[in-house]
Amino acid sequence: MKLLEKRIVLDGQVLGDQVLKVDSFLTHQVDYELMKAIGQRFAQVYKDQDITKVVTIEASGIAPALYAAEALGVPMVFAKKSKNITMNEELLTTEVFSFTKQVTSTVSISRKFISSEDNVLIIDDFLANGQAALGLEELIKQAGAQVAGIGIVIEKSFQTGRQLLIDKGLTVTSLARIEKFESGKVVFAPADDAVWD
Amino acid sequence: MKLLEKRIVLDGQVLGDQVLKVDSFLTHQVDYELMKAIGQRFAQVYKDQDITKVVTIEASGIAPALYAAEALGVPMVFAKKSKNITMNEELLTTEVFSFTKQVTSTVSISRKFISSEDNVLIIDDFLANGQAALGLEELIKQAGAQVAGIGIVIEKSFQTGRQLLIDKGLTVTSLARIEKFESGKVVFAPADDAVWD
Repeated sequence: MKLLEKRIVLDGQVLGDQVLKVDSFLTHQVDYELMKAIGQRFAQVYKDQDITKVVTIEASGIAPALYAAEALGVPMVFAKKSKNITMNEELLTTEVFSFTKQVTSTVSISRKFISSEDNVLIIDDFLANGQAALGLEELIKQAGAQVAGIGIVIEKSFQTGRQLLIDKGLTVTSLARIEKFESGKVVFAPADDAVWD
Repeated sequence: MKLLEKRIVLDGQVLGDQVLKVDSFLTHQVDYELMKAIGQRFAQVYKDQDITKVVTIEASGIAPALYAAEALGVPMVFAKKSKNITMNEELLTTEVFSFTKQVTSTVSISRKFISSEDNVLIIDDFLANGQAALGLEELIKQAGAQVAGIGIVIEKSFQTGRQLLIDKGLTVTSLARIEKFESGKVVFAPADDAVWD
């Protein structure tokens, strides 16, 4: 997605050779216009796939997932990283390790929000090692539902996540794919939605 | 907001005499149509106040805050409950105790996203003891910015939060105000936006 790539070049900060910081429009401060365009792009790619639900994980996935849900006309569900006292029902749960935060979280979704009839579009802000996306796929599989695809805002293509997901037979739609960082600049690989630009 | 009150009656679950569970449209599964109407209502109430930024706290505040930001045409910032390795800049931080999760979190916003020129609308999903809203107000005050008001989706008026905020001279706009739970049913107090219904 050219609009997103341009914004990454303009406002992203490369930290070392692994980390891209996009806290001015995605992970901390949120640009609703860009998020809306991103959500609409996911909807464009998946519009003929009879998506019944968009699933993401708190917190940075919520904005793009919400706009994707709006554009597809379906509910959005965000998986939780901690349990609270009102979660008193049957839960789908799995463990997810975050390399960014260096912690393992128990990720959960209430069983009642995913049924075996569901055809789910998973959305997340970043794809790096694929642990969050694999965790969400595991929860959806536990519910007996289908995963139509995994929509990623920014993929770090030099990490292992994409291949792990593809090896599981999953469809990955990354709107920006980072091949590498070179002298503090981002070098992009062709995005999965390039045909829609 | 009548639309919200109706939805609470229809889909909210009263647990004991303190807790209202609204995980089917707000805190876990998210109804984008209702969230959009809520965001637009906040924007309607604050449209003449020159709001420059909407601030919320992850994760359930994000959806209503995002649509409020869209309707007001300003960026949204969500405060973080944990630090990650890319937060390497000057932070505004404070401690917030969550009665629902029974934990104290360090809540933070990167200093660069709130300036002394900002006039902020705080948005949160629930107001109970007021700790989250007070924490956000503290962060905004640390930045030397103004708080124009605090927009709350659901207020539990029988808890102390509203009074604490009003005693600090803050304006509170709660779209649904719960006076009490009676035989498992919700009894509403007049909402702060009733004039807009």
